[in-house]
Amino acid sequence: MKVSARNIFKGPISAIKTGIVNAEVAVSIGGNDTLVAVVTMESLNALELKTGKDVVALVKAPWVMLMSEGSDIRLSARNSLTGTVKSVEVGTVNAEVSISLPGGSEVASVVTKEAAAELGLRPGVPVTAVIKASNVILGVPA
Amino acid sequence: MKVSARNIFKGPISAIKTGIVNAEVAVSIGGNDTLVAVVTMESLNALELKTGKDVVALVKAPWVMLMSEGSDIRLSARNSLTGTVKSVEVGTVNAEVSISLPGGSEVASVVTKEAAAELGLRPGVPVTAVIKASNVILGVPA
Amino acid sequence: MKVSARNIFKGPISAIKTGIVNAEVAVSIGGNDTLVAVVTMESLNALELKTGKDVVALVKAPWVMLMSEGSDIRLSARNSLTGTVKSVEVGTVNAEVSISLPGGSEVASVVTKEAAAELGLRPGVPVTAVIKASNVILGVPA
Repeated sequence: MKVSARNIFKGPISAIKTGIVNAEVAVSIGGNDTLVAVVTMESLNALELKTGKDVVALVKAPWVMLMSEGSDIRLSARNSLTGTVKSVEVGTVNAEVSISLPGGSEVASVVTKEAAAELGLRPGVPVTAVIKASNVILGVPA
Repeated sequence: MKVSARNIFKGPISAIKTGIVNAEVAVSIGGNDTLVAVVTMESLNALELKTGKDVVALVKAPWVMLMSEGSDIRLSARNSLTGTVKSVEVGTVNAEVSISLPGGSEVASVVTKEAAAELGLRPGVPVTAVIKASNVILGVPA
Repeated sequence: MKVSARNIFKGPISAIKTGIVNAEVAVSIGGNDTLVAVVTMESLNALELKTGKDVVALVKAPWVMLMSEGSDIRLSARNSLTGTVKSVEVGTVNAEVSISLPGGSEVASVVTKEAAAELGLRPGVPVTAVIKASNVILGVPA
């Protein structure tokens, strides 16, 4: 498998909460970080997802919002991963930002060039990557 | 808080409709415009969202679809905000479009350069910003 | 209607599965390909969606993930459309990739420049477009 998603996290499922249509699946991605995904019950069953099973969690870079100085707000998005900026590559409209997490993983985000400037993103700056659980795709070996 | 999301709407919650897993939250964002967000019941409770409470609604620019001459179609997306193009910044692949809403708010969208050309987007042109409710993140003061 | 979404599929609804809050709607988009959309029950009713009814299915290019050599993995995303790369336009940060499907449709995806290089995307290369059902917007004539 090769995927265009810049974020490929690997780890075991740490918890599953099932509903009627959807399920929430928590994946341990290293360090103390957990990534929560919402998938349909149909996918949960088709992929035979169970606590302890190793999965990959895929997130496209434009689906990652960045936040700094976030101590004054609480968000509805389920995933907040705090780390430091590793690199910023600026284009005409967009910028690609790489973030190092304390557990050793990296998160990639594409934001507008303006946003990167406003947040003062440059290597070493602390930043939080915010990811909606519905934007996480899970995969298992075929 | 500083966020990379180009769209930060502020206003009071005007309505909440709860389900088993998810809830729909309507936010008055000025003028006669309302933005509907879908959040999990868990987030609804954790953020103590209630009618009348002031919230911020965050939407990344690539999550905003633009439509013109839309009178001949009805869409499943819950949010349609009609305004006029304020500015267009064109890159190699993408273009960033700013839209002024009648109520005074602005909406930012990133679309492909081609799309901007096909829709004839330039300052003053009427355009509708279409946003899926599941792509709206809500925030409250910590 | 003119929309910024680079992916506009047309076809009849082949199946509908209803839940309490959401419904899954399958659309035949030509060839043997089907695109599944998740919409709210409220939208299902408002748009009077029924099996056999012609609809348009809209997907923005940044919402399409690309995968190659995918035979070793199964994903939670409901839509996998396999075809061959038709063209790649590379920008500073992003690349826009057009994919021809066997049934004659095309799929557009925006991925990072890096991702396009890693996947070796160039005309003629086989590739799979992965689309989450929650990222498909349905439309019907007004």
